[in-house]
Amino acid sequence: MSDPAIILVAPQLGENIGTAARAMFNFGLDDLRLVAPRDAWPSARAQAAAVGAKTVLDRAQVFETTKDAVADLNYLLATTVRSRDMVKPVLTPEHAARELRREAAEGMRAGLLFGPERTGLNNDDVVLADAILSVPVNPEFGSLNLAQAVLIASYEWFKAADQTAPEVLELTHTRPANRDELIALFEHLESELDRTGFLYPPEKRPAMVRNIRNFFGRARLTEQDIRTLRGMIATLAAPRPRGGRRKSKGEEN
Amino acid sequence: MSDPAIILVAPQLGENIGTAARAMFNFGLDDLRLVAPRDAWPSARAQAAAVGAKTVLDRAQVFETTKDAVADLNYLLATTVRSRDMVKPVLTPEHAARELRREAAEGMRAGLLFGPERTGLNNDDVVLADAILSVPVNPEFGSLNLAQAVLIASYEWFKAADQTAPEVLELTHTRPANRDELIALFEHLESELDRTGFLYPPEKRPAMVRNIRNFFGRARLTEQDIRTLRGMIATLAAPRPRGGRRKSKGEEN
Repeated sequence: MSDPAIILVAPQLGENIGTAARAMFNFGLDDLRLVAPRDAWPSARAQAAAVGAKTVLDRAQVFETTKDAVADLNYLLATTVRSRDMVKPVLTPEHAARELRREAAEGMRAGLLFGPERTGLNNDDVVLADAILSVPVNPEFGSLNLAQAVLIASYEWFKAADQTAPEVLELTHTRPANRDELIALFEHLESELDRTGFLYPPEKRPAMVRNIRNFFGRARLTEQDIRTLRGMIATLAAPRPRGGRRKSKGEEN
Repeated sequence: MSDPAIILVAPQLGENIGTAARAMFNFGLDDLRLVAPRDAWPSARAQAAAVGAKTVLDRAQVFETTKDAVADLNYLLATTVRSRDMVKPVLTPEHAARELRREAAEGMRAGLLFGPERTGLNNDDVVLADAILSVPVNPEFGSLNLAQAVLIASYEWFKAADQTAPEVLELTHTRPANRDELIALFEHLESELDRTGFLYPPEKRPAMVRNIRNFFGRARLTEQDIRTLRGMIATLAAPRPRGGRRKSKGEEN
C-alpha cells in the first residue's frame, strides 16, 4: 500500500517547502514532489525549516511541469481555498482522507496538489485532478498558508488510519481503584467527618455524604490516589503527630 | 456562547505568536492570551507573521503567570506531545473539540494551554488542566511546532461546530468551579497539609502536591463541591470546634 504524494506546484520560498516537509512527515508522509520551484534546489532555507524531516527533502523529486509530476498517479486531489468555476466534487479534508485511504487500499497511487503561496493552483492544474480538497475556514478570514494546508491534509490522512482511543487516562505505576478501596475511603472519610462534627445536622447527613461520594467518584481515583487521600485524612484529623503547632485545648480562643 | 481561549505560555518567538494568531483566526478563534512572552510585546515580528489576523494580536492579553491567565476559565486543556507522568485523561484533538463545544454550550469558558517552543509545558502548568490534548503523530517523527499544534486544535474546534453535544453534565443549582476557586482550594489544602506535616520530606513535596492537584482537577469540581471540600478540610484540620471526642495529647497511645 502506498501513501499519497504531496506535490507542491511552483513553490516560492524554500522555507515553506521545508515547513511543508516537516508537516507531512509528522503524519507519516514522505513522497514530496516539487514542480518548478522558483528558487534554486536543493535549498538551504528548506533544509533549515525542515528540522528533522531532512530525509523527506533529500528524497524529493523535482519536475518541470505538473503533468510530469503526477504522471504515475491514479487519483489526484487539488487543494484550493477559493471555490472554482469548475464542476468537480469538493471534499472536506476528512472525506478526502477516507477517499485516499480507499484508493491506497486498492493499490492505487494517489497525490495531493498544492499551488504557489500567493496565487494557489491555476485552473489548468485543477483540471488535472479528480476532485477538489477544500479546507473549511472562517468565512471572514481564510488565510491558510501552504504548510498549514499540507499539515491539515496530512493530519486527516494519518487520522483516517489511526487507532488512537479518543480518550485515554494515563496511568503510570498505578491502576484504577476498585470499588472496595473506594468504599473504604468513603467510610474512613465519613467516620472522621462524623467524629469532628462536619456531617451535621443529622437530617442533612445523607445528602452531604452523597455529594462527597459523587465528586470523589467522578475523579476516577487510582489506587495510589486512595492511599494518598487516606493519608491526608488521617494526618488532618489526627492530633498533631510530629509534635508542633496545633494548639492544645488550653490555648483555644 | 464563548469560544475557547488560546493561551501561549512563555512563547519565545514573536513570529510564532503571529503564526499562531493567524492559525486560530482561520478557524474563528480570537481570544489569545500570552503568559510572559520572552521578547517585548507588542512585537513587530508577530504583526508581520499574523498577516490579516492583526486584530487577534491587538486584542491579545498578556499575563505574568499561567495561573492569572486561566483564572476565569472553567475547563482547561493542556496540549502536550510527550506523555507525562500524570494521571489525567488524554484526548485526541477531535474528542477535545467535542468536549470544548459541550462546555461552551453549557455557558462555560474554556481554554487551551500551549507551552514554549523548545520545551513544551512544564508539569506545574499541566497540573492546572482538566485533561491533556495530544495530537497523534508519526511515532518516528513527532515534531509539530507551536503554530501547527494551535492550527490542528483550532481546526478540530471549527469542524465540530455542527455536532450536537453527545454528553451533558447535569448541574443543578451550581456551576463548574473556575480556576481561581480551584487554586484557592489547592492552596488551602496544601497549607493545612504543610502545617500538619503531611507534605514531608521537602524533596517529595512537589510530586505529592502535583498528584493531589491532579486528582482534584480530574473531578471537574463544582463551585458547591469546592465549598464542601474547604469546609471538610477546615473541620478536619481545626482543633475540635464543638468540644468533644478528639483525644488530648496526654491520652495518646
